[in-house]
Amino acid sequence: MKQPFPFSAIVGQEDMKRAMILTAIDPTIGGVLVFGDRGTGKSTAVRALAALLPPITAVQGCPVNAARLSECPDWAGLETETLHEIPTPVVDLPLGASEDRVTGALDIEKALTNGEKAFQPGLLAKANRGYLYIDEVNLLEDHIVDLLLDVAQSGQNVVEREGLSIRHAARFVLVGSGNPEEGELRPQLLDRFGLSVDVASPTDIEQRIEVIKRRDAYDNDHAAFMVRWQAEDGMLRSQITAARVALKKLTTPEQSLRDVAELCIALGSDGLRGELTLLKAARAYAAFRDDTALTRVHIRDVAALALRHRMRRDPLDDAGSGTRVARIVEETLGA
Amino acid sequence: MKQPFPFSAIVGQEDMKRAMILTAIDPTIGGVLVFGDRGTGKSTAVRALAALLPPITAVQGCPVNAARLSECPDWAGLETETLHEIPTPVVDLPLGASEDRVTGALDIEKALTNGEKAFQPGLLAKANRGYLYIDEVNLLEDHIVDLLLDVAQSGQNVVEREGLSIRHAARFVLVGSGNPEEGELRPQLLDRFGLSVDVASPTDIEQRIEVIKRRDAYDNDHAAFMVRWQAEDGMLRSQITAARVALKKLTTPEQSLRDVAELCIALGSDGLRGELTLLKAARAYAAFRDDTALTRVHIRDVAALALRHRMRRDPLDDAGSGTRVARIVEETLGA
Amino acid sequence: MKQPFPFSAIVGQEDMKRAMILTAIDPTIGGVLVFGDRGTGKSTAVRALAALLPPITAVQGCPVNAARLSECPDWAGLETETLHEIPTPVVDLPLGASEDRVTGALDIEKALTNGEKAFQPGLLAKANRGYLYIDEVNLLEDHIVDLLLDVAQSGQNVVEREGLSIRHAARFVLVGSGNPEEGELRPQLLDRFGLSVDVASPTDIEQRIEVIKRRDAYDNDHAAFMVRWQAEDGMLRSQITAARVALKKLTTPEQSLRDVAELCIALGSDGLRGELTLLKAARAYAAFRDDTALTRVHIRDVAALALRHRMRRDPLDDAGSGTRVARIVEETLGA
Amino acid sequence: MKQPFPFSAIVGQEDMKRAMILTAIDPTIGGVLVFGDRGTGKSTAVRALAALLPPITAVQGCPVNAARLSECPDWAGLETETLHEIPTPVVDLPLGASEDRVTGALDIEKALTNGEKAFQPGLLAKANRGYLYIDEVNLLEDHIVDLLLDVAQSGQNVVEREGLSIRHAARFVLVGSGNPEEGELRPQLLDRFGLSVDVASPTDIEQRIEVIKRRDAYDNDHAAFMVRWQAEDGMLRSQITAARVALKKLTTPEQSLRDVAELCIALGSDGLRGELTLLKAARAYAAFRDDTALTRVHIRDVAALALRHRMRRDPLDDAGSGTRVARIVEETLGA
Amino acid sequence: MKQPFPFSAIVGQEDMKRAMILTAIDPTIGGVLVFGDRGTGKSTAVRALAALLPPITAVQGCPVNAARLSECPDWAGLETETLHEIPTPVVDLPLGASEDRVTGALDIEKALTNGEKAFQPGLLAKANRGYLYIDEVNLLEDHIVDLLLDVAQSGQNVVEREGLSIRHAARFVLVGSGNPEEGELRPQLLDRFGLSVDVASPTDIEQRIEVIKRRDAYDNDHAAFMVRWQAEDGMLRSQITAARVALKKLTTPEQSLRDVAELCIALGSDGLRGELTLLKAARAYAAFRDDTALTRVHIRDVAALALRHRMRRDPLDDAGSGTRVARIVEETLGA
Amino acid sequence: MKQPFPFSAIVGQEDMKRAMILTAIDPTIGGVLVFGDRGTGKSTAVRALAALLPPITAVQGCPVNAARLSECPDWAGLETETLHEIPTPVVDLPLGASEDRVTGALDIEKALTNGEKAFQPGLLAKANRGYLYIDEVNLLEDHIVDLLLDVAQSGQNVVEREGLSIRHAARFVLVGSGNPEEGELRPQLLDRFGLSVDVASPTDIEQRIEVIKRRDAYDNDHAAFMVRWQAEDGMLRSQITAARVALKKLTTPEQSLRDVAELCIALGSDGLRGELTLLKAARAYAAFRDDTALTRVHIRDVAALALRHRMRRDPLDDAGSGTRVARIVEETLGA
Repeated sequence: MKQPFPFSAIVGQEDMKRAMILTAIDPTIGGVLVFGDRGTGKSTAVRALAALLPPITAVQGCPVNAARLSECPDWAGLETETLHEIPTPVVDLPLGASEDRVTGALDIEKALTNGEKAFQPGLLAKANRGYLYIDEVNLLEDHIVDLLLDVAQSGQNVVEREGLSIRHAARFVLVGSGNPEEGELRPQLLDRFGLSVDVASPTDIEQRIEVIKRRDAYDNDHAAFMVRWQAEDGMLRSQITAARVALKKLTTPEQSLRDVAELCIALGSDGLRGELTLLKAARAYAAFRDDTALTRVHIRDVAALALRHRMRRDPLDDAGSGTRVARIVEETLGA
Repeated sequence: MKQPFPFSAIVGQEDMKRAMILTAIDPTIGGVLVFGDRGTGKSTAVRALAALLPPITAVQGCPVNAARLSECPDWAGLETETLHEIPTPVVDLPLGASEDRVTGALDIEKALTNGEKAFQPGLLAKANRGYLYIDEVNLLEDHIVDLLLDVAQSGQNVVEREGLSIRHAARFVLVGSGNPEEGELRPQLLDRFGLSVDVASPTDIEQRIEVIKRRDAYDNDHAAFMVRWQAEDGMLRSQITAARVALKKLTTPEQSLRDVAELCIALGSDGLRGELTLLKAARAYAAFRDDTALTRVHIRDVAALALRHRMRRDPLDDAGSGTRVARIVEETLGA
Repeated sequence: MKQPFPFSAIVGQEDMKRAMILTAIDPTIGGVLVFGDRGTGKSTAVRALAALLPPITAVQGCPVNAARLSECPDWAGLETETLHEIPTPVVDLPLGASEDRVTGALDIEKALTNGEKAFQPGLLAKANRGYLYIDEVNLLEDHIVDLLLDVAQSGQNVVEREGLSIRHAARFVLVGSGNPEEGELRPQLLDRFGLSVDVASPTDIEQRIEVIKRRDAYDNDHAAFMVRWQAEDGMLRSQITAARVALKKLTTPEQSLRDVAELCIALGSDGLRGELTLLKAARAYAAFRDDTALTRVHIRDVAALALRHRMRRDPLDDAGSGTRVARIVEETLGA
Repeated sequence: MKQPFPFSAIVGQEDMKRAMILTAIDPTIGGVLVFGDRGTGKSTAVRALAALLPPITAVQGCPVNAARLSECPDWAGLETETLHEIPTPVVDLPLGASEDRVTGALDIEKALTNGEKAFQPGLLAKANRGYLYIDEVNLLEDHIVDLLLDVAQSGQNVVEREGLSIRHAARFVLVGSGNPEEGELRPQLLDRFGLSVDVASPTDIEQRIEVIKRRDAYDNDHAAFMVRWQAEDGMLRSQITAARVALKKLTTPEQSLRDVAELCIALGSDGLRGELTLLKAARAYAAFRDDTALTRVHIRDVAALALRHRMRRDPLDDAGSGTRVARIVEETLGA
Repeated sequence: MKQPFPFSAIVGQEDMKRAMILTAIDPTIGGVLVFGDRGTGKSTAVRALAALLPPITAVQGCPVNAARLSECPDWAGLETETLHEIPTPVVDLPLGASEDRVTGALDIEKALTNGEKAFQPGLLAKANRGYLYIDEVNLLEDHIVDLLLDVAQSGQNVVEREGLSIRHAARFVLVGSGNPEEGELRPQLLDRFGLSVDVASPTDIEQRIEVIKRRDAYDNDHAAFMVRWQAEDGMLRSQITAARVALKKLTTPEQSLRDVAELCIALGSDGLRGELTLLKAARAYAAFRDDTALTRVHIRDVAALALRHRMRRDPLDDAGSGTRVARIVEETLGA
Repeated sequence: MKQPFPFSAIVGQEDMKRAMILTAIDPTIGGVLVFGDRGTGKSTAVRALAALLPPITAVQGCPVNAARLSECPDWAGLETETLHEIPTPVVDLPLGASEDRVTGALDIEKALTNGEKAFQPGLLAKANRGYLYIDEVNLLEDHIVDLLLDVAQSGQNVVEREGLSIRHAARFVLVGSGNPEEGELRPQLLDRFGLSVDVASPTDIEQRIEVIKRRDAYDNDHAAFMVRWQAEDGMLRSQITAARVALKKLTTPEQSLRDVAELCIALGSDGLRGELTLLKAARAYAAFRDDTALTRVHIRDVAALALRHRMRRDPLDDAGSGTRVARIVEETLGA
């Protein structure tokens, strides 16, 4: 199979790229929702992530890519710990996937032939320590989305059906893309994604030509193109790895908590998930910029990513939610 | 797995905490409905309950956590009584759970391999002597809610299907959370929950900062945070244990019955479940406050919890049901 | 399990109690429909019936509670007639019960293991010679209600499926409760219930206090409360037993037939089931009152029970159907 | 089981009784549709038919009640012809009956145990040479009604499924009852019933009293009542038997064909089934009246039975279809 | 079973009879749609076809009635070619027939007992070289109609399911009847039927009497009636056989192509199937009339059959589609 | 089976023919959508493709028609590489095809008999290196269309169900036809087809006569007709083969990228798939015309094919989308 398009070679789409980088630094920020027109490169970007992300060390044969034998589930029946490096998993969740396939289920073949209850892991096991991507998340059935967000939040997949009682680690970042014209997510679900971005086709002709050129080069001059971008992807990867370490040492002044809370009250965002996510995203961003303390600047730069999908619609305010966030950020925290 | 957030560390949300404490003192009050915006800590609170509640003494291996071997069901096949202490069970009912999984069902594996009809207990067995939590109860199918309320009320789970004829104790408090924007419960079902509370995000900035701080400490400085709140949770637990004993000795003056009845007539609450629940809740509250007799004060303080969800909508009265209860309580019982 | 609430201890609700007593005297009157608000004690009353009804003598091990071995179905495989006294069966039909569970079905286990076609009796077999209770009958699927009314009328359950050809006695009184706000029964089905009553919460405060007191005593001082009401339930039981005997000797003057027919024509009740039911109910009532001949008084007192649900809606007459029956009874038979 | 109510003891309802008698004389007239209010004795009348109809001579053990061994289907595996008299079959088709149960199906038990394909006959086999009764035919699924009318018309049941290729005689008269308020039959299906009648509750008080009296006697003084009406039912049965013979010798003048055709054109009845049915019904009626030639009187007396359900609705003509038939019969054939 | 009604004895309905004869001469004309009121003899006509059509010579035991052993499908396992004459098959497709039954399917019995994958042919195999009749085609599910038209057009039935990969000849003429009041066919499907006719009850009294007389004779004097019409059916059969031969020698002048194209443009019939069908039908008609060259007369006489169902509705033109075709034919080709 | 109609013999329909030829030169252009009235020869054209396309060299017995043994999937169990020439596959996807049949599935027979998990390839395997044709694509279920477009784009079919984990090459061009009156495709799906064309019946009489003549010759003088067109099809085939080679050497001036981007911005086509497809189609067209460099002329001639289905509807512009594309192409690139 062809290697995916390099992450660094994506033209524009800064918001989407930033959101993905932040969750690579701190996966507890939660999932990313990417809404936008067709053909704006949403799935290209997600597949590009696979090549960008730092590799992980995992036990060979472990169905959940665990880092140590002791963290592999019993039902895997592993006995020796051989470690190897594998790419960060990026798992695709196809539309119409059954709950069984997502969570794993009884292995029917073994049940019929050996009369034994064995567990056949699903996509959630594969996605552990990585990303789970859902194209057109707004077309997925609610109960599957619920299930995914529950697991993403708890980091555990619990299967209790057909006499099975299985649990295994399932820590991953959920990335969902969708076209808002084709159906909305319930506010309840929106709120459980950490960040959200809107993407659109570029309107600048030079940028469009650049997109075509790169895509054309990727298709027709593949090897050279991949080499051309390898270095930039590598640098970005190092930056992410460094930020993960820096994040632990970052200090958070009391004023930052106040800024975050004031911003959320001013925006009228329901619940408290907004504050917590904004705080985490701002910290990851500070670490990415190699700063040692959280400041108002970091908060300002990621506020829209963390809050836009948590605001109530304001029928008297025509501005899109992104614009409203920007205006209120400016009023609250200064420009 | 991480320990749940401490109950005492929840900022504000006094109504919700009170309702949960009252049902911990007298589980026959019935279930609790928690309605409110997303992100207001509903599921955090329920999981916090698990740590707060006093442990129970149970027979080892008993599928319904019975206190004595004689109370374990025959089908469990237990022969020796070894007692141990276990946390009060708090069982999660996932959306989309099948009726089989809830009530228990024929153990298909044993049926196929041994040709024997064995029972595989469900979530109702696990929840015996504890709590059963349903997130987004308004999205659950009516027949499952019906079933749950029937069992919760009778304290027995009866399974008569596929040639099985099983019954076992299933005494638990049902806690349901939901977002009223996403669908309503039928009045018939509303009435069968004992208490109800509305929760909302705090609007006070200091309170919001406090919430973020505590949550942040819980996430990033876990061990220290848990130690910090251990004592407060312990005190609350002792208070509950004491109230359970005190409840049996509490006296109920005739005037209290009259107060309760007058209040319900004034509020126009249908049926008689309102009176009975209010009486029980007021008594549990008196016991919690270490008072020896029921007074008008106790009734006043829990009236909204017990009656708000039992009033008919009054299209000419704009006030929310909580406000209406408060006003009528004041008119009827004095401020 | 706790004994049910004593029938005699039910406060008020005279219509409902009368309807149940009449069908206990003459089960051929047909089922009883109890419509009313939530929390008005509908299911309490039905469960109270169980304790009130006279015990029956039945063959041990007979799946249909037959009084003689010769009346037990062949498929039960009984060989010896040992008689014992059992409570009048009161069987609960859960919402969502499958047709299989109601009528009985092929015993799949025996079919699979022995290759033999055995019948596994259902709820209809259990209910023979007793009561079958359906909570929220208006939520039941039409084909199940049809089936139940067919069996209730014919006194026979016929199962012809999956190669089975089974029939067994299934004589029972159907009691259905429901909340008219949640869906109506088709007129066709309404007509096939013998009697109907409306119940409502009492509006008199002393009565409400009495209800709470009794309920509270039942919950918290159970043993004493049961003893307190045992005698009254016993007296009522004797009265029912006596009325069953007296009913056979009761005379019916020609004028009573004329009264019944005139009343039904005046009320515009469709069909002739109204007349027959009213006649039977009036006779049972006469027997209960220990009178030896049917009179206009008896007809008047039970007319509303038998006819209210059989009248066409009159869009020009605002009065509820109960009031209209009362007015026309007065016009037709005198006050 | 109690004997059914005697046909002769049915008060009034002359149309319905006449339609049933005519199909007993000539079953090729086709089915009877009985429409009317609830409680007007529709099902009582059909069950009364069972007792009225002359017995038939059939081969013992033959699943289709054949008169000769040679007419029993091969798959029955019968080898000796022992004849016995059995009542004319009247088979009840329950609402919700599956197609398998109606047509017969593969005998799953034999298929599983012996690995052999055996046929398990259905209700259509049982109904051969008799009546098939459907209560509330308008609630039956269209494809079942279609199937029934196809078989009723062809006299053959053909089952070609699951590797079976079975055909057997299935000659019966279909009797359907229904309440027009609960759904209509498609005109296509209406047309395939031979005769139709409307029934209503009597409005005459003496008649209503008579109904109650007889029903009451049937219930409470069963044996005497059955003896009382035995003779009348017997006479009617002889009359039917005689008419069957007479029918073959009846002459049909050319003028009768013209009368029939003129009537149908005047009534605007679609298609030609009306003419044929009217001709057959009039002949059966003539035979019943012991006349030797068909006259205009016979046609007049059965015209409404045969044509009422075949007329197009006339939105400008308020009169019910029965009245319109009567008026046009008078205009066309004279009073 | 009784022999079907003779085709020649059908009174009137010239269009329908002509359409059926034309497809008997050239089956590639495609199916016939017969729309009309109930009771107009649509199914009688189709069954009459069975007796009219010339017999075919087929291999004994061949499931697709092939004329030569080499044309029998492999899966039939035939080894010797014994020829016999059989009637042209006329197969009835019952409403509600499953796709399996139509196309054939895996023989479950053989699969279970021998573990071998055998094919059980369906109705399409039986209909090969004959007619497939669907009563009420507008009630059939679209995907079945699609499937039938696909097979009818390609002459092949392809079954690729459950591991089967079977194909066999399935050349037949589809005849569909329907009542336009009960649902329409999609234009897409309409277009794929070759010819269409409307039928109606005759309005002429002599004709109606003749219909009744013949039907009555068929029912009551069967043998004589069949003899009476045998000769006429025989003559028609010879005429069809002769026309099949003549068709191959018929010449088609260029002008006829022009006539056909002009007519279709004038009528605004979508697509080109109209031209091709009209050409084929006109040729078959010329051959039937024993003419040696196609002329404008032939085109005129069958234009309505081939084009009526292919016109767009013209909302400004009240005339029925038949009348519009006639008028435009006259304008375009002369009277 | 009859050979398909020759591609070169199709009268008119230049757009459709051009679109098919372009995808034959460069299959990565993506699928073709053909929308139009019934009877306009859509499926004829697709089947004609089969005969036109150059044959491919494939490994005998390889389920995905691979060119080398090393490219055959493991699960095929092939061991020797014997090459043969086969026609370019053109696979028909029937309406109502199950997902199993499309993607392939567990071979149930082998699973049951050998207890082994074998894969039974589906239509996607058959279509590898060829065309997949869907008639009435707008009637297909969305999740099947999604799946097809996903596979078509990735060139891989991944089956992960029932314990299978299979992937195989599935590179094909999707051709969908549909009638816009019968349902629309979601814009999301529209965008994923490379090219689209509208077809209509010719309105010119000479052209229509020509269509009839050729079709008639194809039907009635088959062999001669096929010979007549063989040469033209052969020439077209050579031209396609040559263009495939030329395509690799074609140069693309910077100005062409600018032209393409400007055109797409002017047309307001969402996303960037429009640009890329237009570029590829223009190149394939240049290669087909044997030009060595891409020019504005090539872009102009295929712009409508690539962009028409990607424009937003403009409610103020009555012109059809084809006309609008033409006008804007002229304004942007000159006439």
